[in-house]
Amino acid sequence: MKKKLGEIASFLGGELVGDAQVMIENIRGIDEAAEGDLTFISNPKYLKSIETTNASAILVPPGRTRVDKNLIIVDDPYVAFGKVLDLFYPEDHNPPETRGDTFIEDGAIVSKDAKIFPGVYIGQGAHIERGVILYPGVAIGRHVFIGEDSILYPNVTVYRRCIIGKRVILHAGVVVGGDGFGFARPGQDNVKIPQVGIVQIDDDVEVGANTTIDRGNPGKTWIQRGVKIDNLVQVAHNVVIGENSVIVSQVGIAGSCKLGKSVIIGGQAGLAGHITIGDHVMIGAQSGVHDDIPAHQVVSGSPHLPHRQWLRVEACVAQLPEMRKTVSSLLKRVAELEKK
Amino acid sequence: MKKKLGEIASFLGGELVGDAQVMIENIRGIDEAAEGDLTFISNPKYLKSIETTNASAILVPPGRTRVDKNLIIVDDPYVAFGKVLDLFYPEDHNPPETRGDTFIEDGAIVSKDAKIFPGVYIGQGAHIERGVILYPGVAIGRHVFIGEDSILYPNVTVYRRCIIGKRVILHAGVVVGGDGFGFARPGQDNVKIPQVGIVQIDDDVEVGANTTIDRGNPGKTWIQRGVKIDNLVQVAHNVVIGENSVIVSQVGIAGSCKLGKSVIIGGQAGLAGHITIGDHVMIGAQSGVHDDIPAHQVVSGSPHLPHRQWLRVEACVAQLPEMRKTVSSLLKRVAELEKK
Amino acid sequence: MKKKLGEIASFLGGELVGDAQVMIENIRGIDEAAEGDLTFISNPKYLKSIETTNASAILVPPGRTRVDKNLIIVDDPYVAFGKVLDLFYPEDHNPPETRGDTFIEDGAIVSKDAKIFPGVYIGQGAHIERGVILYPGVAIGRHVFIGEDSILYPNVTVYRRCIIGKRVILHAGVVVGGDGFGFARPGQDNVKIPQVGIVQIDDDVEVGANTTIDRGNPGKTWIQRGVKIDNLVQVAHNVVIGENSVIVSQVGIAGSCKLGKSVIIGGQAGLAGHITIGDHVMIGAQSGVHDDIPAHQVVSGSPHLPHRQWLRVEACVAQLPEMRKTVSSLLKRVAELEKK
Repeated sequence: MKKKLGEIASFLGGELVGDAQVMIENIRGIDEAAEGDLTFISNPKYLKSIETTNASAILVPPGRTRVDKNLIIVDDPYVAFGKVLDLFYPEDHNPPETRGDTFIEDGAIVSKDAKIFPGVYIGQGAHIERGVILYPGVAIGRHVFIGEDSILYPNVTVYRRCIIGKRVILHAGVVVGGDGFGFARPGQDNVKIPQVGIVQIDDDVEVGANTTIDRGNPGKTWIQRGVKIDNLVQVAHNVVIGENSVIVSQVGIAGSCKLGKSVIIGGQAGLAGHITIGDHVMIGAQSGVHDDIPAHQVVSGSPHLPHRQWLRVEACVAQLPEMRKTVSSLLKRVAELEKK
Repeated sequence: MKKKLGEIASFLGGELVGDAQVMIENIRGIDEAAEGDLTFISNPKYLKSIETTNASAILVPPGRTRVDKNLIIVDDPYVAFGKVLDLFYPEDHNPPETRGDTFIEDGAIVSKDAKIFPGVYIGQGAHIERGVILYPGVAIGRHVFIGEDSILYPNVTVYRRCIIGKRVILHAGVVVGGDGFGFARPGQDNVKIPQVGIVQIDDDVEVGANTTIDRGNPGKTWIQRGVKIDNLVQVAHNVVIGENSVIVSQVGIAGSCKLGKSVIIGGQAGLAGHITIGDHVMIGAQSGVHDDIPAHQVVSGSPHLPHRQWLRVEACVAQLPEMRKTVSSLLKRVAELEKK
Repeated sequence: MKKKLGEIASFLGGELVGDAQVMIENIRGIDEAAEGDLTFISNPKYLKSIETTNASAILVPPGRTRVDKNLIIVDDPYVAFGKVLDLFYPEDHNPPETRGDTFIEDGAIVSKDAKIFPGVYIGQGAHIERGVILYPGVAIGRHVFIGEDSILYPNVTVYRRCIIGKRVILHAGVVVGGDGFGFARPGQDNVKIPQVGIVQIDDDVEVGANTTIDRGNPGKTWIQRGVKIDNLVQVAHNVVIGENSVIVSQVGIAGSCKLGKSVIIGGQAGLAGHITIGDHVMIGAQSGVHDDIPAHQVVSGSPHLPHRQWLRVEACVAQLPEMRKTVSSLLKRVAELEKK
């Protein structure tokens, strides 16, 4: 695709500074960009790259110092970058015309405007709305509901009776609704407790590859509107994740945790069961959270501490061998003083 | 489903205190329960909820103080809760009658009383016993054995020659028998060592979604009877997990570890290779275990420490900045004293 | 299979010490080995087992003390062990003759010498070279390239336009090319940035079960020649992993990290985004790496420290309660001295 920079500026509703006639053929990152490329700058850390990039034009935020480059000034360059990526590289989710077989049980309701690839299984009583895309190897259990325009990539499994909202994206290998890890007398005879609840995923949620979200028991595990979950995350039974929260890769959230809105959890962090996390809490990567956290707090470490305290503690930890030497020398000096 | 409370009490062999005629329509957790619901209380922490719940009846352990509610007294309310869940919400694992195709190689032996969903692949020489349920997308390698009444959920993979016992449950996306991570001259030219052993999973094991269990080489990786493994766990080549052990989500167990019976490992813990763990050991969440642990010990932390020592250590860690200040002030005071 | 020890020695180009006529029927580990078995010893730790093993013969490195056993002396016994495993237990990757259906879109180019199992989906414009083996449930997106002799085990997903080299092994459930975790205004409205780059996997790479490798955006995520990645690893968008690096299970590598050659990362370690790791760096298990590491360094801990410093620090950490007591007693003793 080729587009004039002026057209792109109009498309974005941005202010053009420079040559409206320059042709843009590709969208690339600022360091790899070459002639014919549009790039963007969002983080002030990379401002210097504006001088050195070979890109033909740059998306920039308002208030930049003047440079001798073609610029489009937009409120949020990263969001604008997303829009031009969509424009230049539209995705094609259409299945092949009629080749191959799908396995749709009698009594499943599948919109004629859903796109079902071969090799998909849809159980009895399932309800697939219009615009839904089911890639090969997707298995939809009985009485599952999938809302409009959701995309399920290959080999996703949704267990019976779970509810998926609109515009939800489940990446390859995601498992929704597996049994929670519930056993009576653990370590003795591990009596299995039937897991009879569901998972409810609200609109505009995205879930990364091979992430697992267990069904509630009883009741539901609930991923609220706009939540984004990365790859290989574990969400246990009866967890609630509040609107617009962001959960980075390999996080583990144990049973019955309740997370507020706009919570952000860094990679590989773990939350013990039955914890309540307030709105806008930020939890650092690899943290171990063992207790409730009130709204707006920032925590780090395992066991977790307020982030600033954790920074001070870790600075001390790295200095411990020196502190030990100091304490040893103090012991001798005090003993010496005591002799006198 | 509707049942009278008296019927349920008989079914459970429990003692009814209250109105045998009250109708139960649903089973729910104590906080969400409403009229028509049966709930349970197991953890003494939640005893107060007995007063406030709207449930029509409650499963309680013996020796409870009297309350003005309908109660069924049972030895283990959580186990009883499991039984009534099974009663009220029986699961239907029947595949559709004849619709759709399976891919069964010649020379596979599949019991006519096994339930094979469409989209299942079964390799030559595999042996599928009666009562087995294979959901769509399950791939059974050559010469694999699956014992009676085991359930493999969608998109499970079992590699060649692995052995699965009776009443085993493998949740969606589980991989049994992938190659162990064995390379000669690591970091140089990484020569692959063929991985020729197997995985053996004994009766009554349950494995959570997207967990991976590598084949032994040579010999076997062995998950013994009654073991329960949560989601996204890594079990490396030649590991042995003893009977009734419980492994929580995202744990990693490196090659050739030998775990005794009734070991419990908390979420995200890691075990280095070639470690022996005694019976009834408990390992805390996020621990890093680098050495053998004798039977009945409780450990936490990374690197792990006896649990009580770890609690004392972590209390000190959080206080390190204060300790550093104290040591600095001591240095000054001692220098002052030395001057005199 | 049965082979004379003399034949095996010739096959390996090793020096036979002992009876060339002894028959070898199986290859086993040194502790389980019995009569008729060939075993090996590589780690000097296990030298004593030479005396006690029941194996009929042993692969040993040069310079061993004499024992009354049949030996084959080879430069690298572990590599030789791999070769005899291949000889005794060759793997059969042939699909069944014609049974079952595959889902190959028009416009896909599939070599007639590729082996495609039933239940495989191959998208339009994909290119599958000769010798490639695709197991059931593999989903190959549009315009994907898979080089000669690569093996994709069941339920692997490769998203659109990714490039896989020659002799690559992707174990069951691997996901290549899922969307990177890219959202503008995280925690506010989480605007999705389209992920339009690719994953490029070079020759001789092996990737463990259920590992996820996200596509770049823009540009590529790049796994270079000879890299070995274990199970359940997360590789984020635009990461580069240099030749022959070894990444152990459950490691997480955040976006845009650049790893040099022959880097070794222990299990469950995590790397923050945009970090550069030099050649031959070793990162300990469960480390948390938050900053660049120059070539040839060894680091451990979270936050990471040089390995030797970390060892000293951890020794102090375990002694903290004692140190705290010492400091308290010093406080009293100094106060006492000050009184005088």
